[in-house]
Amino acid sequence: MKITAKNIYLDIGKIRGAAPLIHNITNYVVMNSTANALLAIGASPVMAHAVEEVEEMTGIASALVVNIGTLSESWVRAMLSAVRRAGEMGIPVILDPVGAGATSYRIKTCHDLIDAHAPAIIRGNASEIMALVMEETRTKGVDSSDPSSAALEAAKSLNKNTGSIICVSGETDYIIGGENVITVENGHPMMGKITGMGCTATTLCGAFAAVNPSFPAAAAGAMVVMGIAGEIAAGTCRGPGSMQVDFLDALFNLSEDELANRIQVGE
Amino acid sequence: MKITAKNIYLDIGKIRGAAPLIHNITNYVVMNSTANALLAIGASPVMAHAVEEVEEMTGIASALVVNIGTLSESWVRAMLSAVRRAGEMGIPVILDPVGAGATSYRIKTCHDLIDAHAPAIIRGNASEIMALVMEETRTKGVDSSDPSSAALEAAKSLNKNTGSIICVSGETDYIIGGENVITVENGHPMMGKITGMGCTATTLCGAFAAVNPSFPAAAAGAMVVMGIAGEIAAGTCRGPGSMQVDFLDALFNLSEDELANRIQVGE
Amino acid sequence: MKITAKNIYLDIGKIRGAAPLIHNITNYVVMNSTANALLAIGASPVMAHAVEEVEEMTGIASALVVNIGTLSESWVRAMLSAVRRAGEMGIPVILDPVGAGATSYRIKTCHDLIDAHAPAIIRGNASEIMALVMEETRTKGVDSSDPSSAALEAAKSLNKNTGSIICVSGETDYIIGGENVITVENGHPMMGKITGMGCTATTLCGAFAAVNPSFPAAAAGAMVVMGIAGEIAAGTCRGPGSMQVDFLDALFNLSEDELANRIQVGE
Repeated sequence: MKITAKNIYLDIGKIRGAAPLIHNITNYVVMNSTANALLAIGASPVMAHAVEEVEEMTGIASALVVNIGTLSESWVRAMLSAVRRAGEMGIPVILDPVGAGATSYRIKTCHDLIDAHAPAIIRGNASEIMALVMEETRTKGVDSSDPSSAALEAAKSLNKNTGSIICVSGETDYIIGGENVITVENGHPMMGKITGMGCTATTLCGAFAAVNPSFPAAAAGAMVVMGIAGEIAAGTCRGPGSMQVDFLDALFNLSEDELANRIQVGE
Repeated sequence: MKITAKNIYLDIGKIRGAAPLIHNITNYVVMNSTANALLAIGASPVMAHAVEEVEEMTGIASALVVNIGTLSESWVRAMLSAVRRAGEMGIPVILDPVGAGATSYRIKTCHDLIDAHAPAIIRGNASEIMALVMEETRTKGVDSSDPSSAALEAAKSLNKNTGSIICVSGETDYIIGGENVITVENGHPMMGKITGMGCTATTLCGAFAAVNPSFPAAAAGAMVVMGIAGEIAAGTCRGPGSMQVDFLDALFNLSEDELANRIQVGE
Repeated sequence: MKITAKNIYLDIGKIRGAAPLIHNITNYVVMNSTANALLAIGASPVMAHAVEEVEEMTGIASALVVNIGTLSESWVRAMLSAVRRAGEMGIPVILDPVGAGATSYRIKTCHDLIDAHAPAIIRGNASEIMALVMEETRTKGVDSSDPSSAALEAAKSLNKNTGSIICVSGETDYIIGGENVITVENGHPMMGKITGMGCTATTLCGAFAAVNPSFPAAAAGAMVVMGIAGEIAAGTCRGPGSMQVDFLDALFNLSEDELANRIQVGE
């Protein structure tokens, strides 16, 4: 599937039309932001993390987003149950390895989640993606002076091992699936000045994957939409407070013309 | 008590004057939003959920708001302790059965909470209220093609069984107590585009119930104020991001004239 | 170190330059707000509370902020581990005793945290600081009709017992260390109309303490910056919703001139 403004806008139309339920097991910091981003794009967010109910909640969802930003033991158990249930149902799982590499607990949790059922998409920044294949890349001697090249190698390795589409976000976003690499150049540095933009990208991957079975296209759509909403907001905001506000407004009002005029995708 | 702009404004004056402490055991997604809404209307929010302290915290509060949006076992235990303590003290309990019906855990928790001590007010949308009386309504064959009619029947049944005032929010809000039905037509579809508006309505019921012992009037006051602040914000916002901002500003600045000019209540 | 606009601006420059990692174990209500405030001032926030990882996370941080706003048993254990680790490492710990005095669980937790390792700075409002030395101040018969005088006595006593710099925030902020009392008159009443301003002040103390080993100067810098950003936001906002937005924008854009024109410090 070609990544065009038209195709992305068709996906947005499907999201707005079907309002797919996206089950999020995510971190405390961003829950409000990601729920609002899902509503702004037209999806239906639900947050639920109790072991007692996650399988049932995943059971009525169209996609499952798992984000390890603020872990604890009972949440990890719930994540594992939900991921397994999603695997049985065949709905896409999106994993955000927030802060992987900062602690061994986060790395172990990511590996356990991936082992329980390979995600459709794993989205993280370069250091998070590299942390997930650290030992391997170390062994292979991947230690480029160009960090994006090292991250790209790590993403390819992770894709090969898991079958998951890997989305490495940064100034350029890379979406890796097999030999194919999609690049997205949209975005703005102001996005780094507010918390939860990465987590929002991940949850939007969930919304797109709920309506588009081509996961590379879904990830690319989410990253394009994030980036363009960020560009629009950066153009109107006066700082990070109004950036948050303007970002949600831009996401909600995103038109096919804005997409067409701003999209920067390489395939 | 007649539901008039004047009476609602008198209640707002009491809230602003007394700044009643509203103890919230609520979900992670909306905590910040509902705390800010309580501050905007003039009340004092406190959030506390540890079994070790909830009874003591409820003990100094003027109302208790329990919202099941993001449950887990220890939170349910704390909710039950707090509800019982509120019952002993005679302060109003407001229950928000968020997502009841989505999972059996949520239904069971609601029933356990209601059994521990009947809430003063239960506020939910039509499907949540119906989920609380599902078996019964099924048995009765309530299966109207008009969903609001079915929800109204469910609300009447729930009111009869519990003695709680039932507030069913939607395009028209219904407040049910015995044979009396109050309707509130205020509100705006943009309110559905941001997360936590229902939870905010519930916590405002707590603020009004803390100063007005007529719980139907308290619930109606909260729904009118929500709806009007939503209308004002919808008139100035550019999307769901600025809607959130403008809603809190409108709530804070709400004047008796705005109430009088916009109130749409039927009794 | 003299508390001047120039010195505070130098510290801001250090924060922006080094982007120190501030590990927050804080309450659910304000996590998003405090993370965004840290980003706005130029620091790097991380939230992590699992017993399994807090020591490792503290191990890579430049300061630890502990806030007891929404406690539970596992969080208290994690706070104790993190505080001890910070003590071993010699990085500053900032404690926010939110709602201390409301429940005995909060008081006990504060005492346990202080006993585990004395914080560099304790920041609270008058009633919170007084609650931490209640028995003692009662015994001493401190029962002034001037609450700020009683709070000041309590702060001096707490400083003497713990060695921690005590920051009592209010209309005038007092920063107490030994015989020295710094006063900060910046701020605006609108700051009391949004949740989490106190918690934000505390986390900014963490950012300043991460780059300035003089903890009285760090606390004063944080309170001045908070107060001035609050004044600027209060001048442009239309209510508490836009106050939040404008506050973050002001914090992000704070210039040396704005600091110099508005700073109100007494030493």
